[in-house]
Amino acid sequence: MSTPTEVPAALRAAVDAAKERVAALHAELPRWELVVWTAGNVSERVRDERTPDGSADLLVIKPSGVSYDDITADAMVVCDLDGALVEGDRSPSSDTAAHAYVYRHMPEVGGVVHTHSTYATAWAARGEEIPCVLTMMADEFGGPVPVGPFAIIGDDSIGRGIVETLRSSRSPAVLMQNHGPFTIGKDARAAVKAAVMCEEVARTVHVSRQLGEPLPIAAEHVDSLYDRYQNVYGQH
Amino acid sequence: MSTPTEVPAALRAAVDAAKERVAALHAELPRWELVVWTAGNVSERVRDERTPDGSADLLVIKPSGVSYDDITADAMVVCDLDGALVEGDRSPSSDTAAHAYVYRHMPEVGGVVHTHSTYATAWAARGEEIPCVLTMMADEFGGPVPVGPFAIIGDDSIGRGIVETLRSSRSPAVLMQNHGPFTIGKDARAAVKAAVMCEEVARTVHVSRQLGEPLPIAAEHVDSLYDRYQNVYGQH
Amino acid sequence: MSTPTEVPAALRAAVDAAKERVAALHAELPRWELVVWTAGNVSERVRDERTPDGSADLLVIKPSGVSYDDITADAMVVCDLDGALVEGDRSPSSDTAAHAYVYRHMPEVGGVVHTHSTYATAWAARGEEIPCVLTMMADEFGGPVPVGPFAIIGDDSIGRGIVETLRSSRSPAVLMQNHGPFTIGKDARAAVKAAVMCEEVARTVHVSRQLGEPLPIAAEHVDSLYDRYQNVYGQH
Amino acid sequence: MSTPTEVPAALRAAVDAAKERVAALHAELPRWELVVWTAGNVSERVRDERTPDGSADLLVIKPSGVSYDDITADAMVVCDLDGALVEGDRSPSSDTAAHAYVYRHMPEVGGVVHTHSTYATAWAARGEEIPCVLTMMADEFGGPVPVGPFAIIGDDSIGRGIVETLRSSRSPAVLMQNHGPFTIGKDARAAVKAAVMCEEVARTVHVSRQLGEPLPIAAEHVDSLYDRYQNVYGQH
Repeated sequence: MSTPTEVPAALRAAVDAAKERVAALHAELPRWELVVWTAGNVSERVRDERTPDGSADLLVIKPSGVSYDDITADAMVVCDLDGALVEGDRSPSSDTAAHAYVYRHMPEVGGVVHTHSTYATAWAARGEEIPCVLTMMADEFGGPVPVGPFAIIGDDSIGRGIVETLRSSRSPAVLMQNHGPFTIGKDARAAVKAAVMCEEVARTVHVSRQLGEPLPIAAEHVDSLYDRYQNVYGQH
Repeated sequence: MSTPTEVPAALRAAVDAAKERVAALHAELPRWELVVWTAGNVSERVRDERTPDGSADLLVIKPSGVSYDDITADAMVVCDLDGALVEGDRSPSSDTAAHAYVYRHMPEVGGVVHTHSTYATAWAARGEEIPCVLTMMADEFGGPVPVGPFAIIGDDSIGRGIVETLRSSRSPAVLMQNHGPFTIGKDARAAVKAAVMCEEVARTVHVSRQLGEPLPIAAEHVDSLYDRYQNVYGQH
Repeated sequence: MSTPTEVPAALRAAVDAAKERVAALHAELPRWELVVWTAGNVSERVRDERTPDGSADLLVIKPSGVSYDDITADAMVVCDLDGALVEGDRSPSSDTAAHAYVYRHMPEVGGVVHTHSTYATAWAARGEEIPCVLTMMADEFGGPVPVGPFAIIGDDSIGRGIVETLRSSRSPAVLMQNHGPFTIGKDARAAVKAAVMCEEVARTVHVSRQLGEPLPIAAEHVDSLYDRYQNVYGQH
Repeated sequence: MSTPTEVPAALRAAVDAAKERVAALHAELPRWELVVWTAGNVSERVRDERTPDGSADLLVIKPSGVSYDDITADAMVVCDLDGALVEGDRSPSSDTAAHAYVYRHMPEVGGVVHTHSTYATAWAARGEEIPCVLTMMADEFGGPVPVGPFAIIGDDSIGRGIVETLRSSRSPAVLMQNHGPFTIGKDARAAVKAAVMCEEVARTVHVSRQLGEPLPIAAEHVDSLYDRYQNVYGQH
């Protein structure tokens, strides 16, 4: 794979637009109480259509350790799909390698989000998938939210765990064991929506199970709800 | 039923006033933490007094998939009581058919609200009514908050489940199984109040039951509290 | 008891200052998540020093059914200590009779607050006192937060239940069974602080007990913490 | 130990800068829902490099009983490391003696934070350490969050309990039994971050354990995560 060492002129406008979107979308994470302090990160792929295999694509992500008060489009950093810094004054988020792995191996994915949102992470700590007992889960996730393997930061094992788990599921969210959720989408906004909905269903199913057992939804109803929401209706 | 295909001149002012109210009332849903992302919807009936059977009434509702930051009176859409779009640039909420069914079959209802608020939806996922163990529940709901049937979006089964459940209860809220609460009121504001109070009692009774069994309130006390609040006092 | 039918000129300035304080203090109730919608009320006594038995004192309270967005000093109402309206355009809160009873029977009390805050109300629904297992509880409450009787609105039974329970306790908060907390203080601000701290300890002890049994604090430590906080230090 | 009775001219600029930082950092406590009312306090050490044993160092802290709306740099008070007031119009926080003890006995510590944050205090009330079952806990705390002894305010026992517990742990947070968390850092900002993360992990592990047993993380993985985060990467 040969990757750029600076943003090509042909991608300048697309990169700048992605920086604006990614910076603005970070505000959704504290707004919906998915993060504390500087935790959490949103990225978006910038496609280089001149290289159809995607190897020249870039990603825009939050730098490491930045307060949510200081997130501006200018502060965002640009990396190649190996996670190497291409543009920016600060180090990329320490989770950049996992985002980059997802973009390399899932060409349809245009946005990735990672948080340690409380309820999703609580299921992840038990290594337990969230059962599909809500119609909004059937709509958005098409079934349970699956658990990915325990993986240590520093090599490709987190990225590989995300990709392998998501490939065998309709869910755009995976709960990495003892760690927290990663979500994907066609763009950064869709991945943020999946992160918000993942925490919402994690919390609601948790609360429901605290006082008994939620009623299951039959598989054919899950299928028809998912099909309608994704294909017919498109949005709530 | 013959319904208008555009807003009649005689209803212009009433429709515009309803759009203002409905847009403003949507802000109450995130304010009281009943919704995330674009979930939830408020509607209000606009009566056409020239057609006393109500068949020419309209409803004003939020369009589908709009961020709470972008809700303005102008963005609201108008539908007839079959749920068909009469005025507006966007598709009506995918829950419009359920709202419309309620307006068609409950002529006294002037406002409907639907959310997936966490605690109410958690009771709904277990298919369990909320017992009346708080004086504020007796005031507002006159007894338990009932559960409606499991119903799939796409035909009248959600609307029918709401109406049949509410007709046999004093409660202005119903918990649709595996789905979430629908609430009604004499206008949109009253339905929003019922949605706020439904989540409040769902949360408080949940928390109470986590550490034991709440004490019941005798039926005659529930009746006298409800009667006083609804008929004598009117509001808190 | 002979009571004024309008605000006496000698109390004009004191009443107006109390209206300002009471209006401003209402903002603390949603700020600390003690209330939803229009629930909750704060009152303050205005002493008429010319009538030392207190029978000419007044109280300032929120009117019934007012949104927290619309609370201004001018909107506050003035009642005598029988709860009868002395000044104001709207009906006083339906809880005014309970506030008035407390002022009539506890001359040292200058402020009263009532909420349905979630965790305190959850203990109240079980009729269970909150055990004193936190040093901040020993500081503020000097022991457990006690439970008052089940009482129906409409006569003096709520006020009497509050007063009888608080007289046999050091706590400035009482949990009225199936209803919610009432708190008192030397002025409205102190009663609001007690309402905030009551919910805080109700929540923290609830959470602690969810996973086991909190460790008790020995009675002599409770006494010395309470004594120091109330008499030596005065505030945190 | 001989300590200053006023701020030495040589420390003026450093003290004023610390007042600005400490005042601003207090806003993080309500922002992340660690405190209610006037609870909680942040302090920072001001080093007097002319006295290398640290005995002339000062600390900047919030005064007692100040509303979070009224916290300004000017309102902050300065104490010596015995906790005696050196500069300021109000009494220092009643927890100043505990902060001062930590600074006297842990020369590497530059910031201290104390809160009664709900979930951390709930673990403290049971006298139970928080097990290390999240990768973010391994990163930040390098193992469990330990419990310190029950100690009464008024002498050095709180400070001594904090220091003895933290010396035998990698954690920058200690849960003082029946009381609440104290956290330390190289400066006030780092101690605030530790307070925020302590509540976050206390909440997440609590929620996880409500429905089962979180999976343990092997000691060698805890060690490698902690080492990477503290030494290699430095921040998220």
